[in-house]
Amino acid sequence: MQSLCRAVISTTARPHRVVSSLSVSTIRNFSATNMEMGKVRKERDTFGELEVPADKYYGAQTMRSQMNFKIGGIEERMPLPVIHAFGILKKAAALVNTEFGLDKKLTDAICQAADEVTAGKLDDHFPLVTWQTGSGTQSNMNVNEVISNRAIEILGGELGSKKPVHPNDHVNMSQSSNDTFPTAMHIAVAREINHRLLPSLKHLRDALEKKQQEFADIIKIGRTHTQDAVPLTLGQEFSAYVMQVNNGIARVEATLPRLYELAAGGTAVGTGLNTRQGFAEKVAAKVSELTGLPFQTAPNKFEALAAHDALVEVHGALNTIAVSFMKIGNDIRFLGSGPRCGLGELSLPENEPGSSIMPGKVNPTQCEAITMVAAQVFGNQVAVTVGGSNGHFELNVFKPVIVKNVLQSIRLLADSAVSFTDHCVVGIVANRDNIAKIMRESLMLVTALNPHIGYDKAALIAKTAHKNGTTLKEEAIKLGVLNAEQFDQWVRPENMLGPK
Amino acid sequence: MQSLCRAVISTTARPHRVVSSLSVSTIRNFSATNMEMGKVRKERDTFGELEVPADKYYGAQTMRSQMNFKIGGIEERMPLPVIHAFGILKKAAALVNTEFGLDKKLTDAICQAADEVTAGKLDDHFPLVTWQTGSGTQSNMNVNEVISNRAIEILGGELGSKKPVHPNDHVNMSQSSNDTFPTAMHIAVAREINHRLLPSLKHLRDALEKKQQEFADIIKIGRTHTQDAVPLTLGQEFSAYVMQVNNGIARVEATLPRLYELAAGGTAVGTGLNTRQGFAEKVAAKVSELTGLPFQTAPNKFEALAAHDALVEVHGALNTIAVSFMKIGNDIRFLGSGPRCGLGELSLPENEPGSSIMPGKVNPTQCEAITMVAAQVFGNQVAVTVGGSNGHFELNVFKPVIVKNVLQSIRLLADSAVSFTDHCVVGIVANRDNIAKIMRESLMLVTALNPHIGYDKAALIAKTAHKNGTTLKEEAIKLGVLNAEQFDQWVRPENMLGPK
Amino acid sequence: MQSLCRAVISTTARPHRVVSSLSVSTIRNFSATNMEMGKVRKERDTFGELEVPADKYYGAQTMRSQMNFKIGGIEERMPLPVIHAFGILKKAAALVNTEFGLDKKLTDAICQAADEVTAGKLDDHFPLVTWQTGSGTQSNMNVNEVISNRAIEILGGELGSKKPVHPNDHVNMSQSSNDTFPTAMHIAVAREINHRLLPSLKHLRDALEKKQQEFADIIKIGRTHTQDAVPLTLGQEFSAYVMQVNNGIARVEATLPRLYELAAGGTAVGTGLNTRQGFAEKVAAKVSELTGLPFQTAPNKFEALAAHDALVEVHGALNTIAVSFMKIGNDIRFLGSGPRCGLGELSLPENEPGSSIMPGKVNPTQCEAITMVAAQVFGNQVAVTVGGSNGHFELNVFKPVIVKNVLQSIRLLADSAVSFTDHCVVGIVANRDNIAKIMRESLMLVTALNPHIGYDKAALIAKTAHKNGTTLKEEAIKLGVLNAEQFDQWVRPENMLGPK
Amino acid sequence: MQSLCRAVISTTARPHRVVSSLSVSTIRNFSATNMEMGKVRKERDTFGELEVPADKYYGAQTMRSQMNFKIGGIEERMPLPVIHAFGILKKAAALVNTEFGLDKKLTDAICQAADEVTAGKLDDHFPLVTWQTGSGTQSNMNVNEVISNRAIEILGGELGSKKPVHPNDHVNMSQSSNDTFPTAMHIAVAREINHRLLPSLKHLRDALEKKQQEFADIIKIGRTHTQDAVPLTLGQEFSAYVMQVNNGIARVEATLPRLYELAAGGTAVGTGLNTRQGFAEKVAAKVSELTGLPFQTAPNKFEALAAHDALVEVHGALNTIAVSFMKIGNDIRFLGSGPRCGLGELSLPENEPGSSIMPGKVNPTQCEAITMVAAQVFGNQVAVTVGGSNGHFELNVFKPVIVKNVLQSIRLLADSAVSFTDHCVVGIVANRDNIAKIMRESLMLVTALNPHIGYDKAALIAKTAHKNGTTLKEEAIKLGVLNAEQFDQWVRPENMLGPK
Repeated sequence: MQSLCRAVISTTARPHRVVSSLSVSTIRNFSATNMEMGKVRKERDTFGELEVPADKYYGAQTMRSQMNFKIGGIEERMPLPVIHAFGILKKAAALVNTEFGLDKKLTDAICQAADEVTAGKLDDHFPLVTWQTGSGTQSNMNVNEVISNRAIEILGGELGSKKPVHPNDHVNMSQSSNDTFPTAMHIAVAREINHRLLPSLKHLRDALEKKQQEFADIIKIGRTHTQDAVPLTLGQEFSAYVMQVNNGIARVEATLPRLYELAAGGTAVGTGLNTRQGFAEKVAAKVSELTGLPFQTAPNKFEALAAHDALVEVHGALNTIAVSFMKIGNDIRFLGSGPRCGLGELSLPENEPGSSIMPGKVNPTQCEAITMVAAQVFGNQVAVTVGGSNGHFELNVFKPVIVKNVLQSIRLLADSAVSFTDHCVVGIVANRDNIAKIMRESLMLVTALNPHIGYDKAALIAKTAHKNGTTLKEEAIKLGVLNAEQFDQWVRPENMLGPK
Repeated sequence: MQSLCRAVISTTARPHRVVSSLSVSTIRNFSATNMEMGKVRKERDTFGELEVPADKYYGAQTMRSQMNFKIGGIEERMPLPVIHAFGILKKAAALVNTEFGLDKKLTDAICQAADEVTAGKLDDHFPLVTWQTGSGTQSNMNVNEVISNRAIEILGGELGSKKPVHPNDHVNMSQSSNDTFPTAMHIAVAREINHRLLPSLKHLRDALEKKQQEFADIIKIGRTHTQDAVPLTLGQEFSAYVMQVNNGIARVEATLPRLYELAAGGTAVGTGLNTRQGFAEKVAAKVSELTGLPFQTAPNKFEALAAHDALVEVHGALNTIAVSFMKIGNDIRFLGSGPRCGLGELSLPENEPGSSIMPGKVNPTQCEAITMVAAQVFGNQVAVTVGGSNGHFELNVFKPVIVKNVLQSIRLLADSAVSFTDHCVVGIVANRDNIAKIMRESLMLVTALNPHIGYDKAALIAKTAHKNGTTLKEEAIKLGVLNAEQFDQWVRPENMLGPK
Repeated sequence: MQSLCRAVISTTARPHRVVSSLSVSTIRNFSATNMEMGKVRKERDTFGELEVPADKYYGAQTMRSQMNFKIGGIEERMPLPVIHAFGILKKAAALVNTEFGLDKKLTDAICQAADEVTAGKLDDHFPLVTWQTGSGTQSNMNVNEVISNRAIEILGGELGSKKPVHPNDHVNMSQSSNDTFPTAMHIAVAREINHRLLPSLKHLRDALEKKQQEFADIIKIGRTHTQDAVPLTLGQEFSAYVMQVNNGIARVEATLPRLYELAAGGTAVGTGLNTRQGFAEKVAAKVSELTGLPFQTAPNKFEALAAHDALVEVHGALNTIAVSFMKIGNDIRFLGSGPRCGLGELSLPENEPGSSIMPGKVNPTQCEAITMVAAQVFGNQVAVTVGGSNGHFELNVFKPVIVKNVLQSIRLLADSAVSFTDHCVVGIVANRDNIAKIMRESLMLVTALNPHIGYDKAALIAKTAHKNGTTLKEEAIKLGVLNAEQFDQWVRPENMLGPK
Repeated sequence: MQSLCRAVISTTARPHRVVSSLSVSTIRNFSATNMEMGKVRKERDTFGELEVPADKYYGAQTMRSQMNFKIGGIEERMPLPVIHAFGILKKAAALVNTEFGLDKKLTDAICQAADEVTAGKLDDHFPLVTWQTGSGTQSNMNVNEVISNRAIEILGGELGSKKPVHPNDHVNMSQSSNDTFPTAMHIAVAREINHRLLPSLKHLRDALEKKQQEFADIIKIGRTHTQDAVPLTLGQEFSAYVMQVNNGIARVEATLPRLYELAAGGTAVGTGLNTRQGFAEKVAAKVSELTGLPFQTAPNKFEALAAHDALVEVHGALNTIAVSFMKIGNDIRFLGSGPRCGLGELSLPENEPGSSIMPGKVNPTQCEAITMVAAQVFGNQVAVTVGGSNGHFELNVFKPVIVKNVLQSIRLLADSAVSFTDHCVVGIVANRDNIAKIMRESLMLVTALNPHIGYDKAALIAKTAHKNGTTLKEEAIKLGVLNAEQFDQWVRPENMLGPK
């Protein structure tokens, strides 16, 4: 017997020395099974019989994939949102198939099992990695096998008997991996966007907006080319971040129409062979009902199987959000740099010891996490693009790598947005004194004198102050161009914050 | 005097041996000037006086940029669509400034000069490369200098005198490079999308749609995992390409709302310092009027200067279109592979000698060009993303590299779409005989027997035929499962093209 | 008390609805702790006291990181090779510190604990994710805390007491996160390359080389531009793959000199403050001794902390290997396409049911896995590049995302190479009959007639055969240019396989 | 007749409105020909007769490519280094062919014409764009046609007569586009690396090294996580940049062994059909002699045609150099930020007016150019990777896009390195006063007190100083922990710069 555990780590048995210790513990958590203690049952597929762990619902095809694709550890498993989305799809298909003759009793058991899959109760029964067949067939079969066996159990049958609920004939009825996997991809991504990403972006947006209001009256130096420029308010500066996040939300939403199109009903090549008229539309409607999201049947099933442009497009929006995050994270860490030798305009919350030596050293760790996430999303964009572009004929077979990267980007963007909000943004404090001090020292305030004394004299004042390391006011008076009163009256940053 | 030509090639004077021949000819074409013959005039900026070619309208700052940024040759110049867009912006600004007091006579001359810039009549006066200051200031000044001198000429003044039309005080009035350059970026990209990309995509879409109709009745083998699968029509196969291109159009259009937002009126840091109330809105309206595109003033100028998320978003759509092009280009070249040893389903137009030896060898060169374009666009996506993510504080200073890549992607996608359409798609011929022949040989047609003789017998027939290299019909009869009549009645590909 | 489990999933408590079911099961496996049953102990850091799970060795700083960085699930944990490398480094540092005064008894306990870390016995005690502080400080402290507590346990002390083995004073002695984390990065990557990647590449190379030899005498049609060209042997075709993999080995090896440079001894900013003369060199020598790899102390510690160019360079080699894999995977799946309607030159091993309907349908699933891996590595290249380029001043703070991507690429390339070898390459069978048949049909064989009958007549034969769908021989005879004997004598593919 | 000019801009004649003005001027410079004035001659290829401009040496196949590939303007032309490399190759081939029977008189004329190609004297005769056939066949034919006609002219023959020098039979003798184009790619890239990139990198390295020495005694605050840390010297900081550039040189050099392998002699598919024994080796030796670079014949010609891994590898090194440039450029602009409200440690040379308003505002424009170049190179990495990975069977047909991107990266890196050196690095001035001032204010200097007064008291001093915004010295004295003398004796940054 090929045990699961041996299967996964058997690379160590090859003549090439491979460090085996790396994955042992992970594997223990990932796939500890009764097989180690010899508790197995027989399952079979068209290739023959195989032993599987007795406490797992999956069958022979899942077992075979584990044996043939020992690529990476638990980090590389098929993303759970895809598995959970499959639960929704299998339920929807069963309900529609009932209309076309599937035994109601079987439907009920399938639906109960599918609900458990969606609820994450059976996550341990989905051990396959992303790096399998490019159609995701093995994960579709993993779902079929688990739901079949769980439904059999519910109905009092024997695991592995395929009776009364057959993984192919009943759970996969009117379906092909070629249309179910892309359907599950869209469902998973749409749910993650709606339930995870968009709320997280709004959470961040709201926190930034509060800061925008809180900082509305703080006048500070503007910086262009990283150099001193004319002033603006800290609230205005934060308003750009609010705008970026708001636009990010709009960007993702602009891609959703094409994401809400489902391939289900296209079966093997998009023709819908072996389905019934109306199946596609009914399944989409049912998925829409179960998820509360406006899914529709794809207008062209051939495109829906052969290409994943919709996900490439979605990731283009995710990539743009990551671009925004990089900008915001960089700005905040630089504005918070110091405490003595940096810009020192902001104080960021101190969440953990920065150093046991230097009090006041707050490392902008949340900025670091969110900008690292941005770097990852930029990379994922390429993986999704390459995967999306390399489909051939009737089926794109880079499906798992595409969906893995899209889902990782969503998860990381969403989680880091929340973390950044809760552990950084809400606690940002403006160092009003320092902001005011350096703003007042800025030579660019001389601009305000132009209308009163002319450009040339203003330039002379500024150049002299720059050369001598003095203030504009000092030099203006020393040069006899104006007096202290006039300077104080004319040089007013608060009048430089908008058009006249 | 620092001559233009010497300026550009002076790297050869460094002690490190650099092959100078590489760029000499290009430079000759690119920037041959009267300076070589000594015809120059004096221009000055705040750094002092410089000689510029007598037959060029640009002034000292343009000259200085050429001296300081000898990076790349003509291939690297600031894209002309940006220059032309600047013409529109400068005209719009002048017209609005008239409302705020700019002398009508100056406005007229500025508008005439700006129109010439937009019309491409002054292209030779814009020699700067992309790799200059990251704000594009030098190109903004190049535009200001050219329009100023050309307007001076129109009004009978002396080039370089800055009278009566001053490059800063009049041409750049109420503007800063920091808001004009991003405005020109958006105008240029929006025009190129509307006038170049979208028409080209529609041109391709229409040609593919004609082929879809032409091929509607040709039943062919489907291929999944590059392996034989169930049949579909060649028209259905092409319908996926039509859908992809149609979606590409929708994708780009979904990004336009944020592209139509203009930064003009934000001036140096987004506050609008030195502009008048209403200037921003009026300029956007004027640009909209001049271009016929629905531009609006950006709701948040701070974001519009500090970030270029809108262009990153646009490129995400371009990237998706490139993904579609890669898929379509690959499919067509593989379907057209042969003539004897490939798939041989399509004959592509023969546009040029493939080889002097092999008649019938048609290289799918248009597929090659369009897929190479896709590779370039995938790369540009990263350049735009990195540029977009690295802005700091009030100004993103990766503006030129961002707009260069976006515009190159648009141009290449548009041009290659037209080339691919005109020199490949329209001339594709289906090899009906071969398509029918290999489709009929496919073992997957056995699927049609399942309802009549059951899966097991059907499988036996197929496996035997595969093993013996025979046909399904032969084996079915030999095995005594059915007769020839029954086979011909039941195995009908034309009944496998849709749901029942 | 902030329980671990609640900490990780507490995002569900936010007002924004987030689907919580997604990660529950994973988390259960990932971090199930006694905390759920209330078994905890107190640990403290400079921020105060915290409860940690009683059965975990880690302390307050690890706990705090878990609370502050709830970004992603188990898939996102700090790669274990980094943790194991830290074990080696901590042991080496302890041994060197003994020379500088560290109590031998403490050293022994630290070494024993560090060995356990390296052996993977304590993997469950390292729960932190990649998306933490960009210096990896928290993972360094995780290691310090675990080794400290485990060493305390070995010496009979009380967990959390920091006596007699203090995480900072003893385990981290003469070290800073800023030099230890990059050191661990280099050790981890070097070990993974040497023990995992290179053996796997050689395994693949050897298998391809066997096929090269096995196929040495099979003459087949060559294809350029995917079109029929002149012949070569299948062995020659495979020799290109062998060359690519061999070069891949050389490419990675060419980057190793810079990878073998260790930052240890640079401490906080590269100066080596708080270390002793010779510490850096001795630690590198000790790490070299423990790993059997030729590590050296970095010649410039400032560069070694502030930049990770060495890892960007390594990934450039990994990226090139992925390019090779994409080519090889694509070729093999296309050459194996069919069985009836494709190129059909190769038969790939059938590892799992391709379809329940179509016998003979072998999906090239190993090709799909390895090309998906290539897509991921292409993406990782960008993540590493962006991370590597965004360091500032004395410290690059994209360390975790860089090392995560490099290690994932190594693991996926290595594992997929082995899987592809064992489940595909070794079982590839050449379809000699079909290869010979289509090769003989190729019109390009006419080339061989040029010296005998001249180009024009040869061309006429070929064009006629192409037009009529006949063979060269038929048309040659029919046209009266030569007879059958002459044709058979002159048209010999076996004479077209090399220079004369 | 299809004139060149009309050919290029004929997209404007399509029903879709395309802005035609964009390229008119460029095209005028790019391809102004006598065709506009009606001066043409007839040329022919196997597709028939075509008119070409009378003053151009190219023939029918070049003309045909211009008609069929109207993709982009002059910016998109085949890079000139490829054309010049072709000159070297054609000369080498002619010289070797003489040994195998080519008429010495023809050889001499070919060599003279080829020398002119290499010297750039005939650049205007190479109008083809990158986006042509993926094998570069059309550019190979462009070279053959130009050399043939120029050689004919030298020998007193008639242009277009193909006598006595035939483009295929003589100039292309023993060659195929499939082996010549990759050979020219390697020659071009190797020359550009050796003659342009490496000297430029050394130029930058030397300038940085001088600054390292100049700044050796300037003690400054170190910054980690962008926050104040312990001190180092400015010279130490610059030493990291020197190390990065030095490593960049080593990185590129490590890739050269595989770049020096030439495909010449492989002809159509790698077998060397139609060449003579020894041709490949002799051509490589001759190219080596002509270039002074250690070229060798590729050990496996199949790989050399079918893959361009060697160029992907080279670009991996270029990408790493770009990573270094981004780091260095960012550091220098941030260290030079100010003058009043930034870090203000460095003053960068003022090369051009930053603003007409603010004296002292130096925009770090050279940093901006070099970091924009880095962004472009990061993008090119993906284009090269995608192109390199998409070869099929015996020929990679993404050759032009690969070489275009590699050459652009080399050119931009080299030129920007020189520009950055000459216009920025050499003129950097350290603001010693400010550097000393902020360094002395840093609270981290308290670290030096640990050995004297213990960590707790030191921490108390630092925390109090941070809270009160005072100095360590003030608080130390006020707290009665030590006196002014002791403070001055113990807190010495100059003792914190290395191990003890």
